[in-house]
Amino acid sequence: MSRRKKSHQSSHGTANRPRLWGKHAVAAALDNPDRKVLRAWATREAADQMQFPKDVALTLADVADLGRLVPGDAPHQGVVIEVEALDEIWLDGILNAAPERGILLVLDQVTDPHNVGAILRSAAAFGAIGIVTQDRHSPPESGVVAKAASGALERVPWVRVVNLARALEEIGEAGFWRIGLAGDADGELREALGPSRVALVLGAEGPGLRHNTREHCDALARLPITDSIESLNVSNAAAIALYAASIA
Amino acid sequence: MSRRKKSHQSSHGTANRPRLWGKHAVAAALDNPDRKVLRAWATREAADQMQFPKDVALTLADVADLGRLVPGDAPHQGVVIEVEALDEIWLDGILNAAPERGILLVLDQVTDPHNVGAILRSAAAFGAIGIVTQDRHSPPESGVVAKAASGALERVPWVRVVNLARALEEIGEAGFWRIGLAGDADGELREALGPSRVALVLGAEGPGLRHNTREHCDALARLPITDSIESLNVSNAAAIALYAASIA
Repeated sequence: MSRRKKSHQSSHGTANRPRLWGKHAVAAALDNPDRKVLRAWATREAADQMQFPKDVALTLADVADLGRLVPGDAPHQGVVIEVEALDEIWLDGILNAAPERGILLVLDQVTDPHNVGAILRSAAAFGAIGIVTQDRHSPPESGVVAKAASGALERVPWVRVVNLARALEEIGEAGFWRIGLAGDADGELREALGPSRVALVLGAEGPGLRHNTREHCDALARLPITDSIESLNVSNAAAIALYAASIA
Repeated sequence: MSRRKKSHQSSHGTANRPRLWGKHAVAAALDNPDRKVLRAWATREAADQMQFPKDVALTLADVADLGRLVPGDAPHQGVVIEVEALDEIWLDGILNAAPERGILLVLDQVTDPHNVGAILRSAAAFGAIGIVTQDRHSPPESGVVAKAASGALERVPWVRVVNLARALEEIGEAGFWRIGLAGDADGELREALGPSRVALVLGAEGPGLRHNTREHCDALARLPITDSIESLNVSNAAAIALYAASIA
């Protein structure tokens, strides 16, 4: 597997070597055998609570020092680690391993790292087999994603593809019923859900699904919301869709 | 009705006179007859798109000027307004006006303004009659809440009470079935939902519902999540609960 080649430089880590913070995110990274942890900084108190492997270079630091290692006001909870980005995961790998009722999430240009992190967390909560994003229109692994994911960045396979339409073709060929969430759809999501594998396809707030993404869905469906608000937050829409699919 | 008395000083507005930003949040505030708008700043482009009433003092500004009016990196989208906090809303007012199948959200010490804002947005989306928080343990009205609420801060009644247990008593007396969301509950939420008015009671991530809050619920219920993650983000849990109640 090839390493990702991104290298957005930043004093708070790079896309290749992001910094992660927060107790859940860091504990999950330390637990993940596929995650290479390069360095760690922690307060004495946090260091005593966490299980740092002996081969990780740990620097004790105070809260103010830690604050300088992360973007302003990031809630580091006393612990920061620098890691290697995870190896790429291939779509056919997770499709081939999917169970009969597997649920997959596909995100079309959802770029906000808080939302992607929260979606990973919900994907873990409902046992989704993974999330799929388009490489050029999704955030890199980062501390913000990892914190919002609360450990799920280490547990939910995240497939980045070059071409989302081509990926949706593969997903359909693997027996997934592809449902695009769209506010202007005629039918409701729960009517579109059936007994098969399902791919839930969500677009960014505002623009929604791109035309070509809609064209690659088997059905479009909406959530039963009032017209007092234009749309749900995308991570909330994803959570509801995952719940609805899990009880279908 | 009495004005709120909080006065956390800040260069970005106060709790009494918060600054709001972002096109949806500002447009909704301008549309709200109960919202007093004191000042406005906008780029020429945003000013042309928005409908500023003639009696609002509008200052044209560039993007950098606007950036100094709001907390760092806040996505102001070219428009910032300074407003008066909304008048207090009383619990008995919304309980008396509730329809037969009304849904109410009760938040126990959910303090993160992004989460409260996102919950307001979902509450609007599913037609909830309001949200109830405990005054000392909830964020004040702010730009962050308003931006995350995407207009819903102006549309969803937000009741702040001094004593949440007492409020839950009133809510129960008004015929609401009070369901506390708790990860350790035996039954699932959809089994606990019935044909009556319902109050969905959610606690903060981590601590969950306080003991005394649980004691004031008619039932405890959980969402059907796997054990791969400790909990959902609270705004995602609220969205799912609202969805489940709306289709019950």
